[in-house]
Amino acid sequence: MDFDADLPGHVHRELTRFLNEASAEIRVAEPGFAYAVDALADFVLGGGKRLRPTFAWWAWRGAGGDPAHAEGVLRAVSSLELVQACALIHDDLIDSSDSRRNRPTVHIAFARHHTSSSWLGSPEAFGLASAVLIGDLALAWADDMFSTAGLPAENLTAARPAWRAMRTEVLAGQYLDVRTQATGDTSPEAALRVSRLKTAAYTVQRPLHLGAALAGANQEQVDALLAFGAELGVAFQLRDDLLGIFGDPSVTGKPAGDDFREGKRTLLVALGLQLGTARQAEIITKAVGNARLSEPEVADVRAALITCGAVAAVEGRIDDLTRSALTALRRAHLTGPAEERLTELAGKATQRVS
Amino acid sequence: MDFDADLPGHVHRELTRFLNEASAEIRVAEPGFAYAVDALADFVLGGGKRLRPTFAWWAWRGAGGDPAHAEGVLRAVSSLELVQACALIHDDLIDSSDSRRNRPTVHIAFARHHTSSSWLGSPEAFGLASAVLIGDLALAWADDMFSTAGLPAENLTAARPAWRAMRTEVLAGQYLDVRTQATGDTSPEAALRVSRLKTAAYTVQRPLHLGAALAGANQEQVDALLAFGAELGVAFQLRDDLLGIFGDPSVTGKPAGDDFREGKRTLLVALGLQLGTARQAEIITKAVGNARLSEPEVADVRAALITCGAVAAVEGRIDDLTRSALTALRRAHLTGPAEERLTELAGKATQRVS
Repeated sequence: MDFDADLPGHVHRELTRFLNEASAEIRVAEPGFAYAVDALADFVLGGGKRLRPTFAWWAWRGAGGDPAHAEGVLRAVSSLELVQACALIHDDLIDSSDSRRNRPTVHIAFARHHTSSSWLGSPEAFGLASAVLIGDLALAWADDMFSTAGLPAENLTAARPAWRAMRTEVLAGQYLDVRTQATGDTSPEAALRVSRLKTAAYTVQRPLHLGAALAGANQEQVDALLAFGAELGVAFQLRDDLLGIFGDPSVTGKPAGDDFREGKRTLLVALGLQLGTARQAEIITKAVGNARLSEPEVADVRAALITCGAVAAVEGRIDDLTRSALTALRRAHLTGPAEERLTELAGKATQRVS
Repeated sequence: MDFDADLPGHVHRELTRFLNEASAEIRVAEPGFAYAVDALADFVLGGGKRLRPTFAWWAWRGAGGDPAHAEGVLRAVSSLELVQACALIHDDLIDSSDSRRNRPTVHIAFARHHTSSSWLGSPEAFGLASAVLIGDLALAWADDMFSTAGLPAENLTAARPAWRAMRTEVLAGQYLDVRTQATGDTSPEAALRVSRLKTAAYTVQRPLHLGAALAGANQEQVDALLAFGAELGVAFQLRDDLLGIFGDPSVTGKPAGDDFREGKRTLLVALGLQLGTARQAEIITKAVGNARLSEPEVADVRAALITCGAVAAVEGRIDDLTRSALTALRRAHLTGPAEERLTELAGKATQRVS
């Protein structure tokens, strides 16, 4: 089918088209707002793996979606990138992150714009306001793009439960993430709860659910895809945890060791404490939540995690989860090349380097 | 028709029902998120004049909406209160406002919750994160409530342009508000531009447009209602400006003179400077943007604005705008009691004391 090859390219094209359409009137009516709209477009079109639209697309294809709806489905699943833009822009503000994809985050960029324009008041307050409002615009436009994708009403209605659940779950995940850090709950269970919402549900399960529902899939197929997504989502998160300390910053776009600096409790950390010697456990314990963790200290943590067997154990867990995810995927009885492509995607997501 | 009497009561009931439905699953799955969901429900159900749903309802009624859709329309227009919840929660955060409706704002309430729970890290950062995410939840749920109101697809499709424009315009208005303060543009034109977006378009015109479109109104009716809304919206804003300095804090819920403390440039101020003596102009100039403006100084500003004739001029302008708004309203040829009720509403909105 059209779009199967170079799906990210087609998603990019749909996003470009929608952003042009959505901003045309307000750009003319309120030129002062154009700078904010451009910042959103740059953010959305500037990068990202288009993972969520890709999962949704293949679920739709595999569940036997009507080829006559391909264009509308492409548009509907592309809107997931606008939800993601809101999530990232607001997350970066909440976490006070300075950079993403090797560029300044939105609140930082707008604070700098304020400073370089020699405006009145606090640059940080202007950065905060801009990031809040640009994230809101992304969320409102996500709904506009999804709802006006040009799909028959019955398909949209069938997909609404997945759309609703996805947005509520990512916000619940973000809130619980912040709350867990505040309560100081360092259990791997708390970390797992957050990653189940932010990674498994929001990134994998709901996009698959959405795509399948748009195709009019039956409950059995949806359930099999949700099971696939749940296992794969956890595997994806475990790979993320490994990349957070072992990844190459020039590829991941963020400094190695930041998970430790932010005090994130992961399965990797829990296993390190459990399997390590007293000395290794001490190195790991001291690193978690140490905002000023140095590069040599990160190297020590890496050595401790490898030597004690925690890394091998997490790698083994990723393999097991990926295998049982693929078993669930086969139960979905997808048609065409979808099973193969989702299998490939599962491999890439769990073995990626960025 | 049902719901005509006690519309605010029916809006409250629909919001209660929707919030219960929307939160049921996530409350059970993630009890830690319930506190945030409850805060949103308290905010939405805790007050507000239900002005936007009321404008939308009467436009729908007057444009001859199908009575069989009344329940669904009630639900669709009630969702405007969730958009408004997002706007207020995020606005309060952006403006660093401590209280609204005589209660702590969301970011303040969550910072206090953090403090009283003796949690780790910064209470302010937790308050910020919570307000961002709870506002996002309100915006996402507004779309869910609107889209699943149970209306026929063709009615929803007809109303989409109004729904889209409304959310984009309020965000543009908020951004330009912040930007105008930053650039130091103190012209009444800049203030008018912001209030045209935040008050005329978002509060009056688009709700009317939405209601009329849900009824399948023709373009002539929509245009007449938009003209009515534009004039009424400006009159509404002028009343707001007067209340900002002459209002009774125990009724308006905010300290008199805060518009001056925040440095807002209004038509009232512009006229005071134009009509006043050198001494009166000096009193007004010194008050604008004086964050520490005292109660006796506020009294001096009031006296200056009355004596120079600025208040009478603004009152005259409100009368003129209301009159021409009502002329436009008659051109909409609304059916049933809608014209009468919108006329009443216009009177209340421009002559209110809070």
